[in-house]
Amino acid sequence: MLTYSFENTGSDSLYEYLYKCIKNDIMSHKLTPDYKLPSKRSFAKNLGISTITVENAYEQLIAEGYIYSVPKKGYYVSDIAQISVSIPDSRARRTETDNFTQPSENSGSDYFADLTSNRTNAENFPFYTWAKLMKDIMADKREALLHPSPSEGVFELRRAISRHLRAFRGMEVSPSQIIVGAGTEYLYTLLIQLLGHDNIFAVEDPGYGKIRQIYKSNRAECISIPIDDEGVNITALTKSSADILHLSPSHHYPTGIVTPISRRYELLGWALKSDRRYIIEDDYDSEFRLLGKPIPSLESIDVSEKVIYMNTFTKTLSPTIRISYMVLPVSLMENFKKRLNFYSCTVSNFEQYTLAAFIENGYFEKHINRMRILYRRQRDMFIDEINKSPLSELVTIHEENAGLHFLLHVDTELTDEELTVRAADNGLKISFLSGYYTDKNAAVSHTLVINYSALTQEKIKEVVERLYRCLTDAEN
Amino acid sequence: MLTYSFENTGSDSLYEYLYKCIKNDIMSHKLTPDYKLPSKRSFAKNLGISTITVENAYEQLIAEGYIYSVPKKGYYVSDIAQISVSIPDSRARRTETDNFTQPSENSGSDYFADLTSNRTNAENFPFYTWAKLMKDIMADKREALLHPSPSEGVFELRRAISRHLRAFRGMEVSPSQIIVGAGTEYLYTLLIQLLGHDNIFAVEDPGYGKIRQIYKSNRAECISIPIDDEGVNITALTKSSADILHLSPSHHYPTGIVTPISRRYELLGWALKSDRRYIIEDDYDSEFRLLGKPIPSLESIDVSEKVIYMNTFTKTLSPTIRISYMVLPVSLMENFKKRLNFYSCTVSNFEQYTLAAFIENGYFEKHINRMRILYRRQRDMFIDEINKSPLSELVTIHEENAGLHFLLHVDTELTDEELTVRAADNGLKISFLSGYYTDKNAAVSHTLVINYSALTQEKIKEVVERLYRCLTDAEN
Repeated sequence: MLTYSFENTGSDSLYEYLYKCIKNDIMSHKLTPDYKLPSKRSFAKNLGISTITVENAYEQLIAEGYIYSVPKKGYYVSDIAQISVSIPDSRARRTETDNFTQPSENSGSDYFADLTSNRTNAENFPFYTWAKLMKDIMADKREALLHPSPSEGVFELRRAISRHLRAFRGMEVSPSQIIVGAGTEYLYTLLIQLLGHDNIFAVEDPGYGKIRQIYKSNRAECISIPIDDEGVNITALTKSSADILHLSPSHHYPTGIVTPISRRYELLGWALKSDRRYIIEDDYDSEFRLLGKPIPSLESIDVSEKVIYMNTFTKTLSPTIRISYMVLPVSLMENFKKRLNFYSCTVSNFEQYTLAAFIENGYFEKHINRMRILYRRQRDMFIDEINKSPLSELVTIHEENAGLHFLLHVDTELTDEELTVRAADNGLKISFLSGYYTDKNAAVSHTLVINYSALTQEKIKEVVERLYRCLTDAEN
Repeated sequence: MLTYSFENTGSDSLYEYLYKCIKNDIMSHKLTPDYKLPSKRSFAKNLGISTITVENAYEQLIAEGYIYSVPKKGYYVSDIAQISVSIPDSRARRTETDNFTQPSENSGSDYFADLTSNRTNAENFPFYTWAKLMKDIMADKREALLHPSPSEGVFELRRAISRHLRAFRGMEVSPSQIIVGAGTEYLYTLLIQLLGHDNIFAVEDPGYGKIRQIYKSNRAECISIPIDDEGVNITALTKSSADILHLSPSHHYPTGIVTPISRRYELLGWALKSDRRYIIEDDYDSEFRLLGKPIPSLESIDVSEKVIYMNTFTKTLSPTIRISYMVLPVSLMENFKKRLNFYSCTVSNFEQYTLAAFIENGYFEKHINRMRILYRRQRDMFIDEINKSPLSELVTIHEENAGLHFLLHVDTELTDEELTVRAADNGLKISFLSGYYTDKNAAVSHTLVINYSALTQEKIKEVVERLYRCLTDAEN
């Protein structure tokens, strides 16, 4: 029977240790697909540990896809090669969790560095302040914490957001126009219900693929509109059958394009031509514009109630705090209250009140300023390292002044797919601009999207060296 | 100009005091609809307070619908009579917020007692333990807190739920079958996407109206199936075109009917007749069965992967903590991972880990036991007061052994609508069984649904007296 020694478990609990042993044996192909693992009981007896420890290890392995269970039969090793879809077997080790989490949300923890992730590092989250505010609120606001929030969120948070938008974005928005929800993804699904499933939703091409997935999954027709160097191409938009335009005019993802004011007015003009038309302005990372004046939002120049503004705290605080919001024109808000008001707000009161206090007491502004300085430093360091390295001969940097990523155009004969594999072999998880296109003929090749927010500064130099290696090594 | 004295603000802040003054004048019709309020600046000057104080008061009044703003013009008093839809003017005072919150979530704070609410009282929430666990987690689990949760929720919480289901409900469920989400309402919308919008969803009649609203709002066809005294009527179900049956077999809301085992097998038999068919078992309050053995869940007798089990922590902990979960059959879970895995989990990691620790450390079980004792005492007291009162001559009590409500059949000539108005005049917010029917011809009249969980024990005697007054007073 399979056996492991528990002499050197280190700081791991028994179950973690057992989990890692089995996982390693599966990854190294010592345990082959469909191999039947010992029953929990006999394994426990054999190893001299409790059944519950084996059970925990098995459960975790199932959750992560390494093994599977057949009711009344037992536990078997999964076919790991099958899990990795697009990357050859030898790279499977690094992508085994992709089957279970969205790439952008994957920790990439088996990589040396994940350049596709825009997570925040734990040391940057204001744990001390957050914990203190949460504690105060649990002491002072017990009734309010248990009093169901209106569908659109608690008033205190909406008021705090309204003030933040005024101070930070120059937007005049009443708290009564704001709807708080558990992430922008959830708010999109509310908008589909509010605006109507019969509308044709248009998204940017290239663009953030998840938006398209959400429209489709909710049975709303979704079309792609090409962008030019000022953002959504107005001729293509006018020719299309779009009713609702969903875009990020202040910082397009992933190209970083900022739509200039003239194009913004053209877009508003398009919206005005029909009662059905609306614009969803997804302002997901305007807080992190690193240089120059902030761009006024589309919402703030809209006088005709045509713009729905969206933003999120998942980028500024942490993707694991699920709080986003949208600002509806007054007429749409009335419609929401008539028709969708039956939904419970999806964000816990505990976090709504904590965030409200975090904003009202000035901590949010300080946090953003601190993060902006930090990200600017990371970006400067990254660009500096590139310039100092022979890599600089092979690449050009674009769109480095906004958001938490820049583009790196690479001079190479290799395809984007080949480069992705090479990068994985060098411990780097990377993505290309070409991956964000629906229209593959229009896709621009050889352009890396470099997300640097999740990198620690210590790793940057090494990342640049490894990138250089990917481009120059004939063989790995 | 409108003026108020700030000499007796009591414990209110200036803005709260001003908000209340204006609100009272609107409610008492001193300020009439469309009356133009002073501009923020001149009002502030006149009252000798800051503009921001006036602004806060106005914002709150707008948020609650008492006043409205016209951009560039100013603030005006809303037509309160219009806000109250179904109840005559004189009762408007008590329902003015209905336009903004779902009745069941309305605080009913202008009533002496709200018998439609199944909220928990603040003194019953385990604040101390919750705060302590939250604090420990923020100290010990910083990396994990900021590491994005898989789409289905963090493993620790799913494992805790799986153990809870085993211990409490005798269900053998792997953590990998569990999906955590921000409320059952959100999970319904995921299920529609997973099972397919083309399915016909069937709900119970009478039943909880919100479920129907959610299906319709998401463009899924929804039909009603009558229930008999064993739950969903199998003949009607078989004759219908239903693909998916959504029900609460362990405790139907609001009749309290428990579906016996024979009917459960018939329902499973129905589901087996087509690959499209599934049963959604909404087990929303099984923890609060007050007498007798717990009913085994449909999921636990299902051997054919036909039952999707759902439950929520909003009933056991607080409706303001938005955590629910569902258990999918293995084959459906695979489908979920293939198709809907791109969604981010809607519950914050901070609360997922806190709840996991709350369950794993045995606090959840203790909490449920404590609440069950408390609710049983409240129910006993309520029934006792009825029996001691002359009200007992006029009413019969039904279905008092499960959940947090019972039914009170009333011997009266008055219509349900007349009684609702009389109750409101006596400071009671009540609802009737008839309000839960789609088929108004089938609706049973004169049966009150008495939710007692939100009542404080001190109020119960008085509530019984007032109910008696509603039934006997010729004139109010």
